[in-house]
Amino acid sequence: MSGILRPGAAVEMAHGGGGMATTRLIREIFARHFANPILDQGHDAARLNLPHGRIVMSTDAHVISPLEFPGGDIGSLAVHGTINDVAMGGAVPVALSAAFIIEEGLPLETLDHIAASMGAAARKASVPIATGDTKVVERGAADGLFITTTGIGLIPEGIEIAPERIAPGMAILLSGTLGDHGVAILSQRQGLAFGTTIESDSAALHRMVGDMLAAAPSIACLRDPTRGGLSATLNELAEAAGVSMTLKEAAIPVRPEVAGACELLGLDPIHIANEGKLVCICPPEQAEAVLNIMRAHPEGRDAAQIGAVGAHAAPGTPGLLRMETLIGGMRVVDWLAGEQLPRIC
Amino acid sequence: MSGILRPGAAVEMAHGGGGMATTRLIREIFARHFANPILDQGHDAARLNLPHGRIVMSTDAHVISPLEFPGGDIGSLAVHGTINDVAMGGAVPVALSAAFIIEEGLPLETLDHIAASMGAAARKASVPIATGDTKVVERGAADGLFITTTGIGLIPEGIEIAPERIAPGMAILLSGTLGDHGVAILSQRQGLAFGTTIESDSAALHRMVGDMLAAAPSIACLRDPTRGGLSATLNELAEAAGVSMTLKEAAIPVRPEVAGACELLGLDPIHIANEGKLVCICPPEQAEAVLNIMRAHPEGRDAAQIGAVGAHAAPGTPGLLRMETLIGGMRVVDWLAGEQLPRIC
Repeated sequence: MSGILRPGAAVEMAHGGGGMATTRLIREIFARHFANPILDQGHDAARLNLPHGRIVMSTDAHVISPLEFPGGDIGSLAVHGTINDVAMGGAVPVALSAAFIIEEGLPLETLDHIAASMGAAARKASVPIATGDTKVVERGAADGLFITTTGIGLIPEGIEIAPERIAPGMAILLSGTLGDHGVAILSQRQGLAFGTTIESDSAALHRMVGDMLAAAPSIACLRDPTRGGLSATLNELAEAAGVSMTLKEAAIPVRPEVAGACELLGLDPIHIANEGKLVCICPPEQAEAVLNIMRAHPEGRDAAQIGAVGAHAAPGTPGLLRMETLIGGMRVVDWLAGEQLPRIC
Repeated sequence: MSGILRPGAAVEMAHGGGGMATTRLIREIFARHFANPILDQGHDAARLNLPHGRIVMSTDAHVISPLEFPGGDIGSLAVHGTINDVAMGGAVPVALSAAFIIEEGLPLETLDHIAASMGAAARKASVPIATGDTKVVERGAADGLFITTTGIGLIPEGIEIAPERIAPGMAILLSGTLGDHGVAILSQRQGLAFGTTIESDSAALHRMVGDMLAAAPSIACLRDPTRGGLSATLNELAEAAGVSMTLKEAAIPVRPEVAGACELLGLDPIHIANEGKLVCICPPEQAEAVLNIMRAHPEGRDAAQIGAVGAHAAPGTPGLLRMETLIGGMRVVDWLAGEQLPRIC
């Protein structure tokens, strides 16, 4: 359809050289799919007007393998992931940047498809990709495509999201099922089939977060349990806040097919990456209202209270995160020391 | 000196897993070298206060090879490059983010050295690295280390930098010698020696730009001639502004050793990447004042007027950029269609 997208055409080193080939790649693929008033100005950097002053800035390098998977691809994942990081700071995302590192030989059709998916995700979320950069490296010097997205957002007046605000007695809420993203990638990568296809939960959560904060501005903390899963997220928060936490295994939503796959593979959903879920810690009297707001959004349909914050504890205390197991015992939930599923995001 | 930096230690896949190993890598290398009040808050995303509303956002993926070179390394280059992109938008840089894609097996000592250089560059420039991300990919899936930096900055009142403001008769100024960065990398890569070591010009230009804009707020356009060199930068601006431009080859500063290396290698300094130079286009009556301000900064010591903007021309007119050559002829300066020096930044 466009000049450079001939059948069989691939990315060449010249596409990263900064000359005419780079300009054509940007015009015919990225500018076409990402079109928005800020990007269309065509400056090297984006210009935007912000109405006032408290902002959040977050960045993520995406190295997921494979590039396309059930429920998404590296492009939509990068958009959702960075929007979510900004939203977890209590902010309304206003713009994204996207930097591409492309391996020579990547089919232009693949790049075009991923850019289209990225543009669609950004439009659906109403967050423009305002600026970008493209580099090409030789065959073997990267693995297809890496995308680094950075997002900025505005924190509304009166919102103060911080782990330090987590206090004893608060409720720990989870917006939905655990493990979908990690198990989807793993199945795809290893060619495993579990009856039904397990899809990634990759989704932008900023609209749900906006509604939650409007209804319950005293929410203490929001976090998306990505790499390292729920266990890393809650251990980090417990340590930052200097509190213990107790989870109820029976209350944690997990899809049956994900639970089955985990059992087969010897994985625990609590350690697995999610890309469309959040943890919310709020005063107990607001838990029900927040859960109802989450459940009103498709991304929060399966929201549940999964535990509560316990007593204060000195920093460095071991075993801050514990879980009441299905059979009624109590176990410490540690961080994983190593890598369970590499290149999951 | 710190726990993970044992002799011979290398980056492992677990360092990218999001668990304890990732946390230790971030604490013991990145947080140590980048220490600043925003990053030290330890949130997933940075929080900052901006006094008012017009901001610039810019991103750059850095894939330079080799990682260390005369005059800098990928870390300082990433900091300088993104600060310069923000400054070329007329803005005062306020924060950077940094995302690392690391190949398994990279010596931790190399990573530590580069992070230290990056932290030093950010401190020297007084622009904090406010947030970051770290991913690790398997051996062979990247080439050592890629760093993507994103910067945001504030545009002062009354400043309006845009190619559309370039008008016939304006002066074209260059802040110093051409080709130093590209030739330094090429010499290093190919083990060439040219008598003296040629060093990269990698430097942050925001302070010089601040002084230039304070003295001459009607500067129309600023741009750093990086990938594609001066020829790509000016062709792009001429096309965006719909004007012709004429350069005087004799006025373009080039170090003798760089000129010699270019002759030997069959390269033209006008196409070679720079990392510490800028082009400034301003009303002719302000040229002398702006040149004097540039020359008062070490980065602008060799600043010169290298040409002038000619008549308006219809978009798409070929040959918008011309140069009066040393022997008195006139030639068209084209963009390079392909890639002259891959992985130069």
